[in-house]
Amino acid sequence: MIKKYYLLSPGPTPVPEEVLAAAANPIIHHRTPEFSGIFMEVTEGLKYVFGTEQDVFVLTSSGTGAMETAVINTLSPGDKVIVLNGGKFGERWGQICTSYGVDVREVSVEWGEPFSKDQLTDELKANPETKAVFATLSETSSGTVYDIQGYGEVLAKADAILVVDGISGLGATPCPMDEWGVDVMVAGSQKSFMIPPGLAYLSFSSKAWDLVEKSTLPKFYFDAKKYKKNLEKRTTPYTPAISLVIQQKKALDIIKSVGLEKLFEHHRILGDATRAGVKAIGLGLLSKSPGNILTAVNVPAGVDGLKLVKTMQGKYMAYIAGGQEPYKGKMFRIAHLGYMGGFDVITALTALEMTLSELGYEFKLGSAIGAAEAILKENWE
Amino acid sequence: MIKKYYLLSPGPTPVPEEVLAAAANPIIHHRTPEFSGIFMEVTEGLKYVFGTEQDVFVLTSSGTGAMETAVINTLSPGDKVIVLNGGKFGERWGQICTSYGVDVREVSVEWGEPFSKDQLTDELKANPETKAVFATLSETSSGTVYDIQGYGEVLAKADAILVVDGISGLGATPCPMDEWGVDVMVAGSQKSFMIPPGLAYLSFSSKAWDLVEKSTLPKFYFDAKKYKKNLEKRTTPYTPAISLVIQQKKALDIIKSVGLEKLFEHHRILGDATRAGVKAIGLGLLSKSPGNILTAVNVPAGVDGLKLVKTMQGKYMAYIAGGQEPYKGKMFRIAHLGYMGGFDVITALTALEMTLSELGYEFKLGSAIGAAEAILKENWE
Repeated sequence: MIKKYYLLSPGPTPVPEEVLAAAANPIIHHRTPEFSGIFMEVTEGLKYVFGTEQDVFVLTSSGTGAMETAVINTLSPGDKVIVLNGGKFGERWGQICTSYGVDVREVSVEWGEPFSKDQLTDELKANPETKAVFATLSETSSGTVYDIQGYGEVLAKADAILVVDGISGLGATPCPMDEWGVDVMVAGSQKSFMIPPGLAYLSFSSKAWDLVEKSTLPKFYFDAKKYKKNLEKRTTPYTPAISLVIQQKKALDIIKSVGLEKLFEHHRILGDATRAGVKAIGLGLLSKSPGNILTAVNVPAGVDGLKLVKTMQGKYMAYIAGGQEPYKGKMFRIAHLGYMGGFDVITALTALEMTLSELGYEFKLGSAIGAAEAILKENWE
Repeated sequence: MIKKYYLLSPGPTPVPEEVLAAAANPIIHHRTPEFSGIFMEVTEGLKYVFGTEQDVFVLTSSGTGAMETAVINTLSPGDKVIVLNGGKFGERWGQICTSYGVDVREVSVEWGEPFSKDQLTDELKANPETKAVFATLSETSSGTVYDIQGYGEVLAKADAILVVDGISGLGATPCPMDEWGVDVMVAGSQKSFMIPPGLAYLSFSSKAWDLVEKSTLPKFYFDAKKYKKNLEKRTTPYTPAISLVIQQKKALDIIKSVGLEKLFEHHRILGDATRAGVKAIGLGLLSKSPGNILTAVNVPAGVDGLKLVKTMQGKYMAYIAGGQEPYKGKMFRIAHLGYMGGFDVITALTALEMTLSELGYEFKLGSAIGAAEAILKENWE
């Protein structure tokens, strides 16, 4: 059989064909009115997805570069911060802060467990000098979505700012930056933004910008003030990834034409269908608070989790993601993020059924896909 | 008339059609053997262009990000360095170092003037505690190529390392890293590497790597040790710009099939033709040591330099670059870098002739293009 390649990972995600094709146009110069027009349309579209009236800056880097930008532009050496660490990406906030001599109070949350706004209130009471709280909208390592709205309410009454890694979540699950009181929001191009990796986005509230003015951590390429100054001139301080910006313009046109509310609902349906599918064959979810970005599934007893991922990818070319340490071999992750359709969920579950069957797991073939199909049928329009 | 777009700037540069088309393929996942194979071919190809046996690291950023990577991985606060500043990009080395509390001795060289290895020897004698010398292979703001080979000879006998911005020069003009004793070499994807902007490359000699081990400047996204560790696992520490890496594989295939020596000769011919052309109509060059990457031309007396660039770009869609401060309006730059053919020089000079004629400059129409044609004809094979 011809083996088709199916990208079912939580980043990179599939890119619409017309957006792929946009990268094949001849390169235009970035210091021209023509490019500036496209660039400003992109930043306007990003403001829509971010839910903010503030500037959104475009960095040429991975999402991690934008996380570092958030840290080094708001803090100074010795500043005290709280990091909510419920997985690999929460952990990364702490690593970045520590690299710059920031004083980190790390709150370890078990992978997949929620963290309530009341818990955050307690943490802040115990650490009154906190300058910033670092949280994650969608923890990609566990498939968990956290209560950013609640954290925003808590921090609205505090001096500290709320910094959110929205890299895998923004655009797929609600998190209106201004309305929810997020002070720094970070996003990445290869997630719900429907383009390849290479661009990262971030925005600061005016409360956060006050810290930017005082921050003394060293920076150059990721200096937010330079991005602000250049955005006023409709450009970036350094040569941007031109072809990706042009693709983002095209993808934002799609996103705007569908509308954010419908996109959230779309991801909700895909998430529901995936969860119904895996549950129908007796599999459990890792997260107690699963989001609609990806579904982290526990590997059932008796099945070799590493072999499961290898078979899915190698034999069926269904590129789901495995678990990251310490869940390697114990968990796998099916994404339903970005430019995915309902039938992509069916594809993922079919490859999963065939793989599990091959690995000796007992269930009735077709039950996962049947359960997902029922959800899709009910919601299709 | 249909107005075709001609990119004649020193970055971004034109991308071969088959390389553009490569970006339109569906995105594959970066943590897979398939991508690792492509990625390792890219790093091998980069080693060929760099002229090094050392690892070449691939960053998702502009060239400036790689310049910063060079600084923050080799130095510690208070370290003394010498920066050769002969234009905007030499100046940038100083700005980056200063941002990180490095003690900069800036040697200002007039734009377009050469800087000899003997002058460097004198500077080092006067500043014996120098840890690093920052130089530029091709200064894009003035079209000047500096004597990196000579600096390498000087620094081979010193403790200091030689850090070279090869962003616009590498691959177009000789600068074999290992042979010439360059300790840190920096390059960018949108120059002679024939792909769009978004990737930057750098490599460290073992002498430089000794400093990397001792460097205490803070870093995270640009931490060279992480790139080294991940390269051993055939990958990058953070999600790379996948589509650009795939394009770079394709473009390196072209570069390798032509061969570096022939590419240098190709750029030499284009440079000779351009210089002959502008001289034939009485124009002077800004640089006393012009390279074959771009030609910086003085605006003749009586001609409005800003209008010249505006007409070239707006009326003829010939996207040359203007002069940067303090040469704005006094100089313009015609690039012949990357995927350019001989007739692209003729296009540039024809648009220039038509523009100059319109702006009242007196000369015989056809003389610039005729002079360039003669050089091309003589060298064509």
